[in-house]
Amino acid sequence: MNSPIRIGIVGYGNLGRGVETAIGLNPDMHLVGVFSRRDPGTVATAHKSTSVFSMSALYEDRDDIDVLVLCGGSRDDLPRQSPEFAARFSLVDSYDNHSHIPAHFDAVDAAASKAGTTAIISVGWDPGLFSLNRLFGEAILPEGSSYTFWGKGLSQGHSDALRRVPGVAGGVQYTLPSDEAIARVRAGDHPELSTRERHTRECYVVLAEGADPEAVRAEIVNMPDYFEPYDTTVHYISAEELARDHGGMPHGGFVIRSGNTSAGATQVIEYQLALDSNPEFTASVLVAYARAAARMSRSGDHGAKTPFDVAPGLLSPRTAAQLRAELL
Amino acid sequence: MNSPIRIGIVGYGNLGRGVETAIGLNPDMHLVGVFSRRDPGTVATAHKSTSVFSMSALYEDRDDIDVLVLCGGSRDDLPRQSPEFAARFSLVDSYDNHSHIPAHFDAVDAAASKAGTTAIISVGWDPGLFSLNRLFGEAILPEGSSYTFWGKGLSQGHSDALRRVPGVAGGVQYTLPSDEAIARVRAGDHPELSTRERHTRECYVVLAEGADPEAVRAEIVNMPDYFEPYDTTVHYISAEELARDHGGMPHGGFVIRSGNTSAGATQVIEYQLALDSNPEFTASVLVAYARAAARMSRSGDHGAKTPFDVAPGLLSPRTAAQLRAELL
Repeated sequence: MNSPIRIGIVGYGNLGRGVETAIGLNPDMHLVGVFSRRDPGTVATAHKSTSVFSMSALYEDRDDIDVLVLCGGSRDDLPRQSPEFAARFSLVDSYDNHSHIPAHFDAVDAAASKAGTTAIISVGWDPGLFSLNRLFGEAILPEGSSYTFWGKGLSQGHSDALRRVPGVAGGVQYTLPSDEAIARVRAGDHPELSTRERHTRECYVVLAEGADPEAVRAEIVNMPDYFEPYDTTVHYISAEELARDHGGMPHGGFVIRSGNTSAGATQVIEYQLALDSNPEFTASVLVAYARAAARMSRSGDHGAKTPFDVAPGLLSPRTAAQLRAELL
Repeated sequence: MNSPIRIGIVGYGNLGRGVETAIGLNPDMHLVGVFSRRDPGTVATAHKSTSVFSMSALYEDRDDIDVLVLCGGSRDDLPRQSPEFAARFSLVDSYDNHSHIPAHFDAVDAAASKAGTTAIISVGWDPGLFSLNRLFGEAILPEGSSYTFWGKGLSQGHSDALRRVPGVAGGVQYTLPSDEAIARVRAGDHPELSTRERHTRECYVVLAEGADPEAVRAEIVNMPDYFEPYDTTVHYISAEELARDHGGMPHGGFVIRSGNTSAGATQVIEYQLALDSNPEFTASVLVAYARAAARMSRSGDHGAKTPFDVAPGLLSPRTAAQLRAELL
């Protein structure tokens, strides 16, 4: 066996914790430590043995890290961190602001190409595995329609929006795909689906003392962009119920490509994720792509990459010959 | 737009016909013609405009073909043709004899590496897309179980076996996945499933005149390897019903990976194909990989490859920048 791939985790929230756990499931990987903006003494890691360093330790002259896994947010952290660290390390990030991906790619590519590192951006499940399935679907079935449905899942952004409504003491929001829409797509109907027909939104809300439930409900369901375009249901629950029943971070969804190869022949490709923990799953995808980043870096395939650029075999700990014999 | 990718089809059965049709759906491709062992005058192509040549025309000195799509069988044709043609052309094949893939790869690799061509073998859906999903599943969720189910689909090999039974005048066999087994896998149960628990087999048989239905049924359901390990149902139908209701070649199936990222978190990845026409779908996959073969050949990435070695972006007619902006 080759020497293990040495990983540094940058940022330690739910995603960083998921990466820490995922590395423990991959015997060919070694966790060098967590790098945090917080005082290292205050960071309680999932495993006691995990080292925690201050972020500044990444600016020391060091050669003990093969790949950084960036676990910060797409709004404030990654646009700055990914280009900055790509100038010193190979890395993977989960940049997920779809409309800004080209600009993010260019910034990271400039740094990584110059430094001779390999930086795989937008790794996770959407963008990531769902993107790959959108690509495979239309490359294989050029005449057809693609559909992406999300859920059932907790939406962080919509939960945040919900909690900003006056009179809301706490709450979570779940996105649900429409069963009826999925059934029509699976049947090869190529339906034109409105936003309202694709997904519904379900809110579980703890009211602040004295707040008017009808006024809060109206405020929520009419919120532009976030809830107004959807059929939104608001359930009022107690703080105890919120803590007891809604602490998980489930998510998932579907990518479906339905196409015709000839007049009579409908072909349907469907990819589905059902995730108990969104951050742990995204972390697991990041770790598999960290393996690919280490290999691409070693073989001289430098610059910014996306999952579209990564040969699938590079994700597996097995050798190419093993893969052919055992998985093909 | 670049000049079109020039394709030659080798062998013209159901698969070759599917490739001919699929090329018509891909504006960046141009069909040079079909190369057949039969007298070209006797080959009736799907499109009148398709040129048909004798196989010997491939041995002339020619530079008008970028990629050959080999559409012969895995038992008799591809073990000979793929290495032979890889010495002169880049190509894709659908070699599907899982246990002999390593030997086939080595033979093709020797020829392609020496000649400086790119030959992608074992392209299709199993091996092919299902293999990719087995790989992604275990790379992302190292602690878990993988399951492949086939069907509902027409099995060519089992239909052939059926038709060799004395007293059978005609017939087809469908493989069906067990709904119960799939439900258990989706629930994250990690069941150990016997052959009998995974699939059932359904035969539609036309009896020869004077044949004893009970004797024929017993002969079929007790056939070692083919039917004995399964719960097999035999339906007797008329020759008219066979022709009317069983002329299609539907197939499909599931690859499901169920794994845990931590004690409480079960994650399920599911890939599903529902195909009205197995040969047309396999042909569509071959054509997308022919695009990748042309590009890898141009960029100097020579030798034998499998779908594990092909970066997904190479399958799409869109540029890398378009893919990032539009599909990621």
